[in-house]
Amino acid sequence: MNLKFSIDRAVQQLLPGAEKNQVQTVWDRAKAQQPQCGFGRLGVCCRICWKGPCRVDPFGNGPQRGVCGADAHTIVARNLIRGIAAGAAAHSDHGRHIALALFEVGEGQALAYKIKDEAKLQQVAKRLGIKTDDQNVQQIAKEVAKVSLDDFSRQHAKVPCQWAVSTMTKERAEKLSNLGVMPHNIDAAVAEIMNRTHVGCDADPLNILLGGLKGALADYTGMYLSTELSDILFGTPQPTVTSANLGVIKENAINIAVHGHNPLLSEIVCDAALLLNDTAKKAGAAEGFNIVGICCTGNEVMMRHGVPLATNYLSQEMPILTGALDAMVVDVQCIMPSLGIIKECFHTELITTMPTTKIPGATHVEFTEEKAMESAKQILELAIKAYQRRDPKRINIPQYKETAVVGFSAEAVIGALSKLNPEDPIKPLLDNIVNGNIQGIALFGGCNSTKVVQDQNFIEIAKRLAADNVLLLATGCGAGAFAKHGLMSQEATLKYAGEGLKAVLTAIGEANGLKGPLPLVLHMGSCVDNTRAITVAVAVAQKLGVDLDKLPLVVSAPEVMSEKALAIGTWAVALGLTTHLGTIPQVTGSQVVTEILTDKLKDLVGGYFLVETDPEKAAEKLLSVIKEKRQGLNI
Amino acid sequence: MNLKFSIDRAVQQLLPGAEKNQVQTVWDRAKAQQPQCGFGRLGVCCRICWKGPCRVDPFGNGPQRGVCGADAHTIVARNLIRGIAAGAAAHSDHGRHIALALFEVGEGQALAYKIKDEAKLQQVAKRLGIKTDDQNVQQIAKEVAKVSLDDFSRQHAKVPCQWAVSTMTKERAEKLSNLGVMPHNIDAAVAEIMNRTHVGCDADPLNILLGGLKGALADYTGMYLSTELSDILFGTPQPTVTSANLGVIKENAINIAVHGHNPLLSEIVCDAALLLNDTAKKAGAAEGFNIVGICCTGNEVMMRHGVPLATNYLSQEMPILTGALDAMVVDVQCIMPSLGIIKECFHTELITTMPTTKIPGATHVEFTEEKAMESAKQILELAIKAYQRRDPKRINIPQYKETAVVGFSAEAVIGALSKLNPEDPIKPLLDNIVNGNIQGIALFGGCNSTKVVQDQNFIEIAKRLAADNVLLLATGCGAGAFAKHGLMSQEATLKYAGEGLKAVLTAIGEANGLKGPLPLVLHMGSCVDNTRAITVAVAVAQKLGVDLDKLPLVVSAPEVMSEKALAIGTWAVALGLTTHLGTIPQVTGSQVVTEILTDKLKDLVGGYFLVETDPEKAAEKLLSVIKEKRQGLNI
Repeated sequence: MNLKFSIDRAVQQLLPGAEKNQVQTVWDRAKAQQPQCGFGRLGVCCRICWKGPCRVDPFGNGPQRGVCGADAHTIVARNLIRGIAAGAAAHSDHGRHIALALFEVGEGQALAYKIKDEAKLQQVAKRLGIKTDDQNVQQIAKEVAKVSLDDFSRQHAKVPCQWAVSTMTKERAEKLSNLGVMPHNIDAAVAEIMNRTHVGCDADPLNILLGGLKGALADYTGMYLSTELSDILFGTPQPTVTSANLGVIKENAINIAVHGHNPLLSEIVCDAALLLNDTAKKAGAAEGFNIVGICCTGNEVMMRHGVPLATNYLSQEMPILTGALDAMVVDVQCIMPSLGIIKECFHTELITTMPTTKIPGATHVEFTEEKAMESAKQILELAIKAYQRRDPKRINIPQYKETAVVGFSAEAVIGALSKLNPEDPIKPLLDNIVNGNIQGIALFGGCNSTKVVQDQNFIEIAKRLAADNVLLLATGCGAGAFAKHGLMSQEATLKYAGEGLKAVLTAIGEANGLKGPLPLVLHMGSCVDNTRAITVAVAVAQKLGVDLDKLPLVVSAPEVMSEKALAIGTWAVALGLTTHLGTIPQVTGSQVVTEILTDKLKDLVGGYFLVETDPEKAAEKLLSVIKEKRQGLNI
Repeated sequence: MNLKFSIDRAVQQLLPGAEKNQVQTVWDRAKAQQPQCGFGRLGVCCRICWKGPCRVDPFGNGPQRGVCGADAHTIVARNLIRGIAAGAAAHSDHGRHIALALFEVGEGQALAYKIKDEAKLQQVAKRLGIKTDDQNVQQIAKEVAKVSLDDFSRQHAKVPCQWAVSTMTKERAEKLSNLGVMPHNIDAAVAEIMNRTHVGCDADPLNILLGGLKGALADYTGMYLSTELSDILFGTPQPTVTSANLGVIKENAINIAVHGHNPLLSEIVCDAALLLNDTAKKAGAAEGFNIVGICCTGNEVMMRHGVPLATNYLSQEMPILTGALDAMVVDVQCIMPSLGIIKECFHTELITTMPTTKIPGATHVEFTEEKAMESAKQILELAIKAYQRRDPKRINIPQYKETAVVGFSAEAVIGALSKLNPEDPIKPLLDNIVNGNIQGIALFGGCNSTKVVQDQNFIEIAKRLAADNVLLLATGCGAGAFAKHGLMSQEATLKYAGEGLKAVLTAIGEANGLKGPLPLVLHMGSCVDNTRAITVAVAVAQKLGVDLDKLPLVVSAPEVMSEKALAIGTWAVALGLTTHLGTIPQVTGSQVVTEILTDKLKDLVGGYFLVETDPEKAAEKLLSVIKEKRQGLNI
């Protein structure tokens, strides 16, 4: 019966044991929550003030307005944009953390870090209009950090966020500015949403949703700088071969999972594990430390260091259930509080590291940039101790793992293309779009959700699009799904790609000495890295001389659940992209809001949300959008 | 039957007519919402991600954790601090708006405004450590604005908000810094709350609530600067005699209500009404324009210009029901969306003015500082047109109004005391606290709520405390309630004050040439002005050489409903003050959270929440706290 919860065979192998041992997993809790509140699902429940909670009767028999007079449209819109604010805050606080670390490196502090990609630093400085003549690397780093932090602190509303305007097409930046949704300050945009949704403020659903677009573009700003500054500090990902799924956990190693989103600590844990590998061997683990990834911290270290990925969001409890995970180190976001309970049934040490993310039951090792290596060593010691408590009889590591070729940053994609045309690397991509070998591009992102059989929507939609010659990009838990299921391999390209796509991926692969094609799905990073795809898209759009909404480029978050994903989806729409959601957003209690999101936004920004829970139909609809965009371009 | 909804006789007079004409009021909507969702009321409903909505069964039979594993404590704490974030954002965006206006004035822009209180500007500059030698008023204004805006933009976490640390006792600032809850940046504190409450972040209820304290102190920072900079721009309130309740609406005038919270526009509307009064007379209104206030914009213009107050939050629909309100001009916060419906049944023009607060059905006249006078004139013209549509047969102005002596800024209070002791104005207050003439001080703030008979808790608790010689201060809708019910009059002092309190209020009144006592309740401003009371409290604490938590000073929000009030209540607790709530906060689904808020915070910060819905019992409990604090001081 558990089988329907996930198409991941490793998960399927572990769930019966969990049930037998009465270990509650996310699927058990989801089942126990049924039936979930219909008012909440429709978005018509308001808890914004204590005159409430209020709710609007969706059938029209009961009350149509809350105590203050807010109707379903106001309530739904407010709830939605508060989610966007949270998403933007989460991504951007992550980005700020990286910017502050870069600033410290520029100041000669934070000795565990250094500038790993000077070329990218120069390029980013140039894009931000920073003069680099006569400045050394540290000085430039500090300037880049400062200009980035300006996007969190500017008080003059007429100057837009520099990371936003400098990274999109000029037409797009103008359109968004004219619409009044271009942020000037990331934090201020988050605060503005919280302000305008306070009781007795904005009641106009369209005005509220435009506030949401502004918040989402603040999210874009924070994400973009987070990715780019991470590349400067930790290196820009380049293609690397690794593997994914629970089979990456090794019986004869001290297994440490890094989980969350922020690479600041996990980078140093990787460094420290190399340094101290002998201590692990001395403790009896023949293969020393084995760092594996979960969720987006996993994607970060996978992209940059080829660290294998254990699993993605929804199955994050499973590594503990293998009985062979000695420590799970978590930073921020998408970390289930249930880990604090489940680890009690095993020997695993759960270690929280960030001051704003603590979990009852976990050991807290506070991480600071200054003491990064010290914290990392302390974590390794805790893992060694846990390893010594491990019960060999309880080990049950599902022997599933798939090869994954990952590391496709925008620079890596353009680098690969440059092997076909060194002067004009975008040209071969564009030529193949125009000649139809590549019909379009789809960016998969977003989460897993208990409302979808885990990974199923990702895999089904991707296979269908690939067969129709759509180039596939992926980030976040989507990337995790594809990696786990073998879709980031050369074999997958041979098996699933349509002829045109296969020819292009093969030509690029061969030109890059891969003796075969590129993988079917290009892993572009963690969920905070969705802007990597925008970098490529803007280059294509600029070469074509059109705005982003004209491109045959679609976005799909087929298993979306988090507020971060909501923010990402909303900025994708604001950038002009048709964005598919495979779970029903909690807005359907308002026809006005639903229509704006799925239709009217098209007139304002060119993009809109396409909601379709059936993967087959979703693929068809995405293909139609691509077709329509191609017709628009007369190709 | 309507009578039980409000103790305000003006409201009682209008409700039957509303019922007869099928005009739905807030009380009708509140009734229609019954029964309200029990999960929401307990705080155990989680809508933070789209795996949900989830809810914890408060009886322990159903699920005890959401899909992600969050338990009731995590869920309740997260919901609560998101409310604090919204409150802080609302107050602080208001403060930022004032700071930006001050900056423009400093730049020689925004010609409708000027520095009205130079002495206060100098004093604020000094407190913020700004050098004023050789600088003219405009330069100082700009510097003060800049330092204020720094509190919204600072990225270095180790430097605290200057408006926070410079306005509290040194011990308090140290305690809060050591606890890690002193904000360095208002917006960043709001964003941090949204980040840490994202799915899979903070799960530790105490850690979450400390995040809430930090957000609340950001609220304090934003409020403090909002009040002080408003005084610089619009003048520091001084005692003035005016009146309150719906009887202030005049049949033979063009009645314009200013409603909301931000004085930037209403100040200019008052100026313009004076300038253009003849046009109103020409339009047929013998008494010209009659500006009246609602809610806290009402308090702002009441305190500074003696503009009469029509009503407070819960009865904001009533002025329209008089049939004689020609225009209602709203800015931000606590404006019921229902106004857009109710005004359809009358001739009233509803005018929204702020880009982040639009209401379907309203006319939007966008306000900017640059075009302030132009917007104000446009509003007056709309009011004249509406006046000409007025139907005399529908006029029903309840003839209730009470005299109210208002305008007790901290400076006004200290100014009044200085008539008793010019060298040491705090001394007479302190002496009378020590000798017991004044047993303690109570600050009333917060909202009205449909969960309480309107104004009843305020009035009952205040009368009881006054009889026991507690000095009463009030802001916001509490101040509105007291003004409407005659408790801001000299007569009320004679009637309700205990002998000791009466003697002190009379001595001060006589010394100030009032030929009688000060009013029973001192009106300290709008809800954003609660920091005025802290100014006085800090002066008393410093003189006594103790921290704020040692003072016989209590706070009461007996009819609280808004997130802003939640933020205020939380910073009052963080400052060490016992804070009474007269409605049940939506936290009781978590014993852990409830215990922290009502008990454990006492050990951390000295303050805590006292929840008591019965006004008589609440008064007794507040008196006990005062007694206990007096014992602690050996007085």
